[in-house]
Amino acid sequence: MASQSVLTPQSQDFPRWYQDVVAKAEMADNGPVRGTMVIRPYGYALWELMQSEIDRRIKAAGANNAYFPLFIPESYFAREAEHVEGFSPELAVVTFAGGEELAEPIVVRPTSETVVGEFMAKWVQSYRDLPLLLNQWANVVRWELRPRLFLRSSEFLWQEGHTAHASDDDAHAYARKIHFEVYNDFLINVMAAPTYVGIKPASERFAGAINSMTLEGVMRDGKALQMATTHELGQNFARAFDIYYQSEEGQAELCHTTSWGSSTRLVGGLIMMHGDDDGLVIPPRMAPVQVVVIAVRDEPDVNETVRRLAEELRDAGLRVEVDRGRGSFGRRVTDWEIKGVPLRVEVGPRDLASGIVTVVRRDNAERSTHGLGALARELPAELERVQTDVLAKALAHRDAHTADVASVADAIDAAQDGFARLAWDLVAGEGERTLNAEAVSVRCLQRQDGSLPANEDEQGLVCLVAKSY
Amino acid sequence: MASQSVLTPQSQDFPRWYQDVVAKAEMADNGPVRGTMVIRPYGYALWELMQSEIDRRIKAAGANNAYFPLFIPESYFAREAEHVEGFSPELAVVTFAGGEELAEPIVVRPTSETVVGEFMAKWVQSYRDLPLLLNQWANVVRWELRPRLFLRSSEFLWQEGHTAHASDDDAHAYARKIHFEVYNDFLINVMAAPTYVGIKPASERFAGAINSMTLEGVMRDGKALQMATTHELGQNFARAFDIYYQSEEGQAELCHTTSWGSSTRLVGGLIMMHGDDDGLVIPPRMAPVQVVVIAVRDEPDVNETVRRLAEELRDAGLRVEVDRGRGSFGRRVTDWEIKGVPLRVEVGPRDLASGIVTVVRRDNAERSTHGLGALARELPAELERVQTDVLAKALAHRDAHTADVASVADAIDAAQDGFARLAWDLVAGEGERTLNAEAVSVRCLQRQDGSLPANEDEQGLVCLVAKSY
Repeated sequence: MASQSVLTPQSQDFPRWYQDVVAKAEMADNGPVRGTMVIRPYGYALWELMQSEIDRRIKAAGANNAYFPLFIPESYFAREAEHVEGFSPELAVVTFAGGEELAEPIVVRPTSETVVGEFMAKWVQSYRDLPLLLNQWANVVRWELRPRLFLRSSEFLWQEGHTAHASDDDAHAYARKIHFEVYNDFLINVMAAPTYVGIKPASERFAGAINSMTLEGVMRDGKALQMATTHELGQNFARAFDIYYQSEEGQAELCHTTSWGSSTRLVGGLIMMHGDDDGLVIPPRMAPVQVVVIAVRDEPDVNETVRRLAEELRDAGLRVEVDRGRGSFGRRVTDWEIKGVPLRVEVGPRDLASGIVTVVRRDNAERSTHGLGALARELPAELERVQTDVLAKALAHRDAHTADVASVADAIDAAQDGFARLAWDLVAGEGERTLNAEAVSVRCLQRQDGSLPANEDEQGLVCLVAKSY
Repeated sequence: MASQSVLTPQSQDFPRWYQDVVAKAEMADNGPVRGTMVIRPYGYALWELMQSEIDRRIKAAGANNAYFPLFIPESYFAREAEHVEGFSPELAVVTFAGGEELAEPIVVRPTSETVVGEFMAKWVQSYRDLPLLLNQWANVVRWELRPRLFLRSSEFLWQEGHTAHASDDDAHAYARKIHFEVYNDFLINVMAAPTYVGIKPASERFAGAINSMTLEGVMRDGKALQMATTHELGQNFARAFDIYYQSEEGQAELCHTTSWGSSTRLVGGLIMMHGDDDGLVIPPRMAPVQVVVIAVRDEPDVNETVRRLAEELRDAGLRVEVDRGRGSFGRRVTDWEIKGVPLRVEVGPRDLASGIVTVVRRDNAERSTHGLGALARELPAELERVQTDVLAKALAHRDAHTADVASVADAIDAAQDGFARLAWDLVAGEGERTLNAEAVSVRCLQRQDGSLPANEDEQGLVCLVAKSY
């Protein structure tokens, strides 16, 4: 029942396959202004599930949601030198409002460290006010010359966390907590997305950060996608925005701040990490529709059973759609496959007679038969098996597409269809420039056991290099 | 235990009282760009609860969330003549992006009928695609010269629903469904906010609508606040954006569209509808913190009981904060009163000895004593009583501040501290201009029994007039 010729095969043209999936699964369209995006209901439902899972973890980590303005005075950006240099080329600027030319141009936020810093300075008085743990869900704008839906769009949706701490240790510990308990936990346990967790080399850090942590996913084509990042900003923004606190001893001290973000880019990551030639493959915990109950033919008995089964499955807590038997069965199956619905329950007239239905897994096309009365009891466990297998498959793909190499030249070879891992000493400096010239970049640094180093200065680190989105 | 001199009394200076509450309850701050707003965690928690309640009702009404771009080409606005005229003075315009002057200026969306219309035209092919029921949660920008936090800000957060229908009847019925099952149901059953439900006179309609429905709340100072609106757009936007469908008979037909919105303005409405001289009064279903368990003194026994009670109440499904006994008890009570927490559980050393605690209601200052072991069983019902009483009080206030009058002159008198109701025939035309000259406007038209007319042309309508926010 595989879809023929609906999508460009991955092996033939991966970027085209991606475009096809986004269009055919009705995830998103290009907006009328260059680089902007219309997120259609199916794509947005995925984002809403991501939001709700990430938001729950952010709150559990003690941060509170707030909302800061879209518009930031241009002068704020100039206060942190690296920050303005990093973001200037991407800014959209409002010069006219309320029928008048503005005295000071206004920047449409590309990220909110500056305006949040301004208010942290007002709200933080004493050590008792720390840590101050904030998060916001918002849109941001970074002008894109080569936009791609979800992956690089001039406007995207994200959460951005911003925290202020009394000490470097506290900021460091909280940043790691967010990185593991929010991002990595969500990626592994919900999105079934194993990554390489590491720190960015200085050249790839966020503009204004002293340390950037990342989670790098390995896509089906072997390229890297940064799934989320957490930045230790040291005292750079505290200094630029006067975020001082009075210590227990009565001294005025500069705060240490962090920021951390994840965006609608994750939807692109989901597509490219799990998808196959038949379309999306959505891990069940992430699926807007976990089960589609589909009538093989448009007959009253069949449709009535489809309706009843869907109700039973919904009562069992599953997210369920029904597909009554209008139009070609094959065509309908193809459409649900493109949308990546984890389980398809096929109900035909013959099955009814024998009291059984066929369940087909999207991830591996396995078929099984189930008694009509047992379905609501058996499918939750079946979904959990799919979840586990999708994660295992992504992990196997990651490992199969990671080569241990001993030179920059071999790393460039390996990076043609995956990641290369090699000693950071072989790369740092000249090696990084050589890689970059071949469109390969250092995605992250790790310790040899794969764990997260405190910073780039640790000895004996390895780096993972790849082409990237 | 009333707070003295913390807030300006309502009777002395209502706008000042409002500002004080917003500041002292840590709801919001003014942003750095004129008219923008920073929503602080306590204010945002209110908005999140509103969002979740409204979103659930929108989904139950069959609409799906999507996301349309912030940036709209300026030319889109010109396509619907009334729309461009209505919104032009309020637009913020991006003229520079990605380091370059733009060829066509870009408008920061003040509302999204135009860009949604453009995509509806692409997505709707046949009558089978209808109705198309969309909603988005987003920020919008309308430049404000006299901004006021939550009530009128240059940027605000809202949901905007947009639907397309095959017939006028279907559009009309769906608009009414949203108006009652989403907005009015939320306002009555969650926000405890009775309103006058009616239609706008032509002069007050949304720019481009053929009919606008509203819900007008009566604030504590007798002024009106529009809590939400639902617009029937007829075929105006369908014509401007070519939203055609092929009918069952194979004819190309224009769609009928609707749009409907509610915004962070509701937070302002909540403050002004229920608040008193001691601060916010939040109906329990809307309260980020429903119960604060507060230690009278900082003693280990007391704090341990406070902790345990809070845990029991959380296990009973309530939203609970604890306040351990640091600092002045009176000052802490005042702060929780300003924040409008519905119930305060006071735990003192003497109470502990006798195994009882005192519970104080925020809405009417009533005190009751409860056995320690009974609290988790008794407080949910107590919260429901508060919810009911807050609604009843708001309803009584609404009715006490509505005068039936028989002339425009009497209506102007009555509008000095409330609403006036009179025959629409006495007002329509010249009367409306007389009212407007006195800063009084027609808030809505109703049938004599208070029900919603189909349109302005019905005979024997009454109108409600008032000063407004």
